[in-house]
Amino acid sequence: MLLFENNDRIVFTGDSVTDSGRGRPVGQGLWDGVGNGYVRAIDSLLAVSYPESLFHIMNTGSSGFTSRDLLSVWQRDVLDLKPDWVSVCIGFNDVWRQFDSPAVTDQHVYIDEFEKNVTLMAEKTLPNVKGMILLTPYYIETNTDDAMRAKMDEYGSVIKKIGKDKNIPVVDLQKEFCDYLRYRHSSYIMWDRVHPGWVGSMLIARAVLKAVGADRISIGE
Amino acid sequence: MLLFENNDRIVFTGDSVTDSGRGRPVGQGLWDGVGNGYVRAIDSLLAVSYPESLFHIMNTGSSGFTSRDLLSVWQRDVLDLKPDWVSVCIGFNDVWRQFDSPAVTDQHVYIDEFEKNVTLMAEKTLPNVKGMILLTPYYIETNTDDAMRAKMDEYGSVIKKIGKDKNIPVVDLQKEFCDYLRYRHSSYIMWDRVHPGWVGSMLIARAVLKAVGADRISIGE
Amino acid sequence: MLLFENNDRIVFTGDSVTDSGRGRPVGQGLWDGVGNGYVRAIDSLLAVSYPESLFHIMNTGSSGFTSRDLLSVWQRDVLDLKPDWVSVCIGFNDVWRQFDSPAVTDQHVYIDEFEKNVTLMAEKTLPNVKGMILLTPYYIETNTDDAMRAKMDEYGSVIKKIGKDKNIPVVDLQKEFCDYLRYRHSSYIMWDRVHPGWVGSMLIARAVLKAVGADRISIGE
Amino acid sequence: MLLFENNDRIVFTGDSVTDSGRGRPVGQGLWDGVGNGYVRAIDSLLAVSYPESLFHIMNTGSSGFTSRDLLSVWQRDVLDLKPDWVSVCIGFNDVWRQFDSPAVTDQHVYIDEFEKNVTLMAEKTLPNVKGMILLTPYYIETNTDDAMRAKMDEYGSVIKKIGKDKNIPVVDLQKEFCDYLRYRHSSYIMWDRVHPGWVGSMLIARAVLKAVGADRISIGE
Amino acid sequence: MLLFENNDRIVFTGDSVTDSGRGRPVGQGLWDGVGNGYVRAIDSLLAVSYPESLFHIMNTGSSGFTSRDLLSVWQRDVLDLKPDWVSVCIGFNDVWRQFDSPAVTDQHVYIDEFEKNVTLMAEKTLPNVKGMILLTPYYIETNTDDAMRAKMDEYGSVIKKIGKDKNIPVVDLQKEFCDYLRYRHSSYIMWDRVHPGWVGSMLIARAVLKAVGADRISIGE
Amino acid sequence: MLLFENNDRIVFTGDSVTDSGRGRPVGQGLWDGVGNGYVRAIDSLLAVSYPESLFHIMNTGSSGFTSRDLLSVWQRDVLDLKPDWVSVCIGFNDVWRQFDSPAVTDQHVYIDEFEKNVTLMAEKTLPNVKGMILLTPYYIETNTDDAMRAKMDEYGSVIKKIGKDKNIPVVDLQKEFCDYLRYRHSSYIMWDRVHPGWVGSMLIARAVLKAVGADRISIGE
Amino acid sequence: MLLFENNDRIVFTGDSVTDSGRGRPVGQGLWDGVGNGYVRAIDSLLAVSYPESLFHIMNTGSSGFTSRDLLSVWQRDVLDLKPDWVSVCIGFNDVWRQFDSPAVTDQHVYIDEFEKNVTLMAEKTLPNVKGMILLTPYYIETNTDDAMRAKMDEYGSVIKKIGKDKNIPVVDLQKEFCDYLRYRHSSYIMWDRVHPGWVGSMLIARAVLKAVGADRISIGE
Amino acid sequence: MLLFENNDRIVFTGDSVTDSGRGRPVGQGLWDGVGNGYVRAIDSLLAVSYPESLFHIMNTGSSGFTSRDLLSVWQRDVLDLKPDWVSVCIGFNDVWRQFDSPAVTDQHVYIDEFEKNVTLMAEKTLPNVKGMILLTPYYIETNTDDAMRAKMDEYGSVIKKIGKDKNIPVVDLQKEFCDYLRYRHSSYIMWDRVHPGWVGSMLIARAVLKAVGADRISIGE
Repeated sequence: MLLFENNDRIVFTGDSVTDSGRGRPVGQGLWDGVGNGYVRAIDSLLAVSYPESLFHIMNTGSSGFTSRDLLSVWQRDVLDLKPDWVSVCIGFNDVWRQFDSPAVTDQHVYIDEFEKNVTLMAEKTLPNVKGMILLTPYYIETNTDDAMRAKMDEYGSVIKKIGKDKNIPVVDLQKEFCDYLRYRHSSYIMWDRVHPGWVGSMLIARAVLKAVGADRISIGE
Repeated sequence: MLLFENNDRIVFTGDSVTDSGRGRPVGQGLWDGVGNGYVRAIDSLLAVSYPESLFHIMNTGSSGFTSRDLLSVWQRDVLDLKPDWVSVCIGFNDVWRQFDSPAVTDQHVYIDEFEKNVTLMAEKTLPNVKGMILLTPYYIETNTDDAMRAKMDEYGSVIKKIGKDKNIPVVDLQKEFCDYLRYRHSSYIMWDRVHPGWVGSMLIARAVLKAVGADRISIGE
Repeated sequence: MLLFENNDRIVFTGDSVTDSGRGRPVGQGLWDGVGNGYVRAIDSLLAVSYPESLFHIMNTGSSGFTSRDLLSVWQRDVLDLKPDWVSVCIGFNDVWRQFDSPAVTDQHVYIDEFEKNVTLMAEKTLPNVKGMILLTPYYIETNTDDAMRAKMDEYGSVIKKIGKDKNIPVVDLQKEFCDYLRYRHSSYIMWDRVHPGWVGSMLIARAVLKAVGADRISIGE
Repeated sequence: MLLFENNDRIVFTGDSVTDSGRGRPVGQGLWDGVGNGYVRAIDSLLAVSYPESLFHIMNTGSSGFTSRDLLSVWQRDVLDLKPDWVSVCIGFNDVWRQFDSPAVTDQHVYIDEFEKNVTLMAEKTLPNVKGMILLTPYYIETNTDDAMRAKMDEYGSVIKKIGKDKNIPVVDLQKEFCDYLRYRHSSYIMWDRVHPGWVGSMLIARAVLKAVGADRISIGE
Repeated sequence: MLLFENNDRIVFTGDSVTDSGRGRPVGQGLWDGVGNGYVRAIDSLLAVSYPESLFHIMNTGSSGFTSRDLLSVWQRDVLDLKPDWVSVCIGFNDVWRQFDSPAVTDQHVYIDEFEKNVTLMAEKTLPNVKGMILLTPYYIETNTDDAMRAKMDEYGSVIKKIGKDKNIPVVDLQKEFCDYLRYRHSSYIMWDRVHPGWVGSMLIARAVLKAVGADRISIGE
Repeated sequence: MLLFENNDRIVFTGDSVTDSGRGRPVGQGLWDGVGNGYVRAIDSLLAVSYPESLFHIMNTGSSGFTSRDLLSVWQRDVLDLKPDWVSVCIGFNDVWRQFDSPAVTDQHVYIDEFEKNVTLMAEKTLPNVKGMILLTPYYIETNTDDAMRAKMDEYGSVIKKIGKDKNIPVVDLQKEFCDYLRYRHSSYIMWDRVHPGWVGSMLIARAVLKAVGADRISIGE
Repeated sequence: MLLFENNDRIVFTGDSVTDSGRGRPVGQGLWDGVGNGYVRAIDSLLAVSYPESLFHIMNTGSSGFTSRDLLSVWQRDVLDLKPDWVSVCIGFNDVWRQFDSPAVTDQHVYIDEFEKNVTLMAEKTLPNVKGMILLTPYYIETNTDDAMRAKMDEYGSVIKKIGKDKNIPVVDLQKEFCDYLRYRHSSYIMWDRVHPGWVGSMLIARAVLKAVGADRISIGE
Repeated sequence: MLLFENNDRIVFTGDSVTDSGRGRPVGQGLWDGVGNGYVRAIDSLLAVSYPESLFHIMNTGSSGFTSRDLLSVWQRDVLDLKPDWVSVCIGFNDVWRQFDSPAVTDQHVYIDEFEKNVTLMAEKTLPNVKGMILLTPYYIETNTDDAMRAKMDEYGSVIKKIGKDKNIPVVDLQKEFCDYLRYRHSSYIMWDRVHPGWVGSMLIARAVLKAVGADRISIGE
């Protein structure tokens, strides 16, 4: 059964994967307010399937953010919005900068800090909400020997560990994409192996909706 | 069971409701090729749910088109693309101009011509394809006494009649929207009561997918 | 006889219906200063018909404003301009957001607050001016069973009640549009049933001019 | 009584005074189709005052045109539109170029050619329409000794002469503006003394409406 | 003999007639720094004719300024630049707004305030400079009965009076333009009768250069 | 005495030095028609000094043109305009490409072709006009050992030779600039040593005006 | 020793990897004519190292081109330029579309056609030039099990085979990138694993320069 | 042997020659972060040749800066970045403004101040870094009699003197360009004789790389 209840306030936050051109200062309401990525897919699917309920969905993802950046705006972009539910999808840039800008170490967020950052987000939030959802970062690549994929897996494991420790549902997006890559090459999703495109957004939305018990929606394989 | 088969070529055509910013000359492939309306929703949902099959989806809807305009490019925008399936959603502008520009009669397409136009589209197409789908035009308005709603219903009846005569599945979009309007005001879908927005696109996609037997996808109410 | 006297300062304020692209910070004077909506129509008709008088017309409408927003800038956008007359047209967005963004309740202004807001505007203003004019919000829709129309009527009633209580002339714009809709469909005025377009602006102007006794101008039916 | 009848097709043509940003190829219908000058004022006032009739108003004025230019497109921009009524307002640029570009004689249209051009327009048109209307060019200047005003008066006299010879109603716009200039300086209308601005457009509209017997509309002085 | 000496700092200030697209914050040096109006003409003619001297020419004219506005920035835009010479050309907008925006009285600067403003400019400046130059405002119109021309003449007389009282050379630009209008219509200079265009800029430059004794330059009639 | 007579048609043509943003297809008349380079300076100075005469000045210079390009449009851009006088300033790009793009030999116009091209221009033109004027190309560089300066001098010599042979007045612009460079560094004129800037335009105008006997204008050193 | 000789005409062609924003119609000469990718790096390094020679380098790469597209413009974009040397880098899009747009089979160029296309390019060209250079397409990915990498290797083998058969030097760019990826992750070069970025352009340039015997340049590892 | 060591932080600063469109606030990392001038050439060549090392290269050059401007931001743009190496290329604008804007003396930085400014930069920096590099300003002109070249040589001498006094390696860019100008005209590098273009950037990069002992890179002549 769907965890979200009528009139719940639900914040999705993270980086560009979440942002997807959302409105400012808070992505919500009319037109492209919630952006045109996975948050929109979730919003539309819920609206169609649970029309008797109202879900106040807000998107505060910010392109380019690492967990360090996100933590620094957590009060303004999450807690001040008085959410009932908070979904976090962070870590891509923590890892990516270590590979695409190896010399610019100021922009790297290593795994210990990452764990500390996400843990702090959870601890500041859990007492004030009905629940949180954690999404693992992912790399749309099946080769687990790829250095960036391997590192992303480590960050994903941190997310899973925090989820387990704090009893927060975790959506394993890396697994979702790997399952799908049995049928298509990664470039079908997006050339850069991170930003999800339309199909990837639907994959993420499907996984999140399943995790929150949206059983009216079934987008099978 | 899904009517579309692996490698089928599927053309969606119509007016701005279909167009939704599609690529030119043919809306297909990468990025926003298929536009960001209901065709994209269909494309994404099929891609996620039927990953073992490839559907070559093409969007040739053109903003502002009446059935008269669409018929005039039918060869180029439909037949030349050698489709296996053709989905047509036309008639909004045939009706709308009679109400928003009552004096500009050159732009009105009355019901007899509308019937003739869509009939011709069907006759030129059916011998060359596996199947067609007809979508009724709609007005996102529950008051059947509204003059434009009433007229749109007449045009929708023409679509249903052609569908019946020629054995083409018809998707009754007017009914889909009316069902949904039990829960929301029309302005939630779109201020102008025609262009569908994100939620409306999902509603259309759901109805079309159901009509083509996409039983892996269930977006309930 | 015309209420406005030579050299009177007249402020029109409200939301996008009034704004219509007015100049900033105060919409007045040359070129498109007063916007290109009903304020301009009033300004032009007065200028042509009462050439021996000068009316200093100012437009401080702001797109998207609810009564809550307008009240918050009342000092700067109305009182500081030292008007002789103040015309207010507010309430559309108070109502509209309840229907197009039902989940985003922070943006709703319910009827009690609306009454309080407009009452406060009147009370702050009346002691300092020759007179005020209140325009009802409207929904260009004849079906009084439409939920948004019904709600708009309630807000209109509040305006009429305040007008009666405080002896302020009220222009019933809902009635003006309903009278006109006997001849045309609402989409002829504007697809979104709120923003007035050229013809709607003329209708509003005619009604306002009548209310202020501009008897040199007669735009009959 | 209004000369225009229900469903009449009415073309307004001329130069920038008429054009005012009209749609292409024919200025008509929705949004700013008829431009935002005097044609729009006429269109709005007729729509409000004669709602039981539909007038198909078309604007084919083109900025910068002399009578020579207008004649060269007369078939396409007037006759092919199958009008019932044709209103012409031309001559400004025929005169203006003689004063602002005295050396560029190729761009001057002298009075004999002007007379011949407008006469030809009338002769090609009258057999095919219910009626024509001629508007005199004007210079928003009261000093009849001003060389450009004097020359404009000569061109205006040609218009009046053609009107008399061919029994076409003539609107003496020069007189309209002169009457108004008793109250305001020319710079109030427009700095350049030709383009009419909002107030000037209303003055022109009033005069034209009077000439066509629109007796429901009275915009007095 | 030329009043300006080698290395003199020369500020030209005023409104749009002076501004002409000058650089910000101070119009000087390379490219279009000094704008492309009369200041540039002066700068170029001096540079060519007195190549052995360097004149540091600065333009701080600001479009739309009245004498009230100019006075309010006098410290920053004139005195702080430590000029040896200051040329002022102000008053157009003081007068113009009285005619083009007669109702917007806040924007009018009447003649007493104008005199006070320019007098204050002179008094703040004269003790700190080698000299000042005053340019009369003008209206490119020969008819002295024109209300705006008549008013402009009054403002010009104030300039001449201040010049006489304080022994500041005055350039009578109204006379310059009137002399020229014996040969051309005002619209040849500029449609709006104020902004000078290329030929008008040269006329102003010629008059200013004559006033400062630039006897190497002779641009006769 | 000035060679140009009342109502003469005068074409200035060449490359970007002449073009300077001129209007298309022919640079003439209002606003920036003649561009904002030396042609404008000539136009303004003549207009101010010879107000009793009208000179129809046309600019058909085209940026980037070599003598080869100019010859190819000579009929359209010069002869078809039926000029009384033709002034040509060409050769910069013929030379420049040899130095800035030494490998792109297709774009080089060597001295024999240059001579042939300009000779042909003269021969096609002289029988049809009152007179021609030839301006030498130049390089704003005093060092005659500079390779590009040396080459430009050769091309200048060709111009002088053609002038002598055909009895056409030649304006030696290289000499004008060299004289001026005694006082300023070349970068004061323009960083690229070719495009003249405001001061350089005035220098060219002065030289051309002298060559055509404009004795009312004296811009001394 | 460098194969290119003084004054040789050298065409680089291909797709977006070559194009890199080159000038149109032919990318050559001043400014960014040759684009800002590997062709520019080659051009700059040759210019600095072989200053005594002139190489006329032309870039006619076109973004998005497959070998089919390139073949269709071969006459215009290669042969008509009369090159001494031709370098071709094609095949990326032939392969990529098979993976990112698997359903859009019209855009796929399979290996047999690819071989035929490149063979035809060679056969049309070899008789008319001093030599050709073939660059293999590549995928910046070390995992040879990746489906797109595997396919790209097959296309690369075709290039090598053609090179061997026709005695054309082949630059194995796949090997160049693989060697470099021992030190950096592919995302350091470019997120999409195809477009080379600055470092990748230098790698390509180094490999090409080595292949043409540019022994004055050594950019070691 | 290369002076830079693995993980060194290296700041390049100066004016537009260094800036070249760098990112803000610090030019580093992905895409065009380091600009597209000589810093990029250095970055790419090092990345290719020393792949086993990471150099954190930062560009903080700012277009238009004199040594006075650069000194004023030295703390923020250099010291706060905690560099191991600092390369400075300044002085062009100190000299240039004396020649292109001789009257605007406020913008001139004379040689004593220049020496003081650069000395201060060195003194603030040397105690905190592994080393500095000084690049002489240059003028791409072989004629040492040219006034700007002569002045630039004096400023270059100051740089050499400071380098000698403080034991900082100096790269004599003037010499680099002069050596190259034996083969090409200055306009081949850049029309303005200062901004380096692609070839000039490579020349600067080569010289800097040689100065820091990058012996794996040899871009001979």
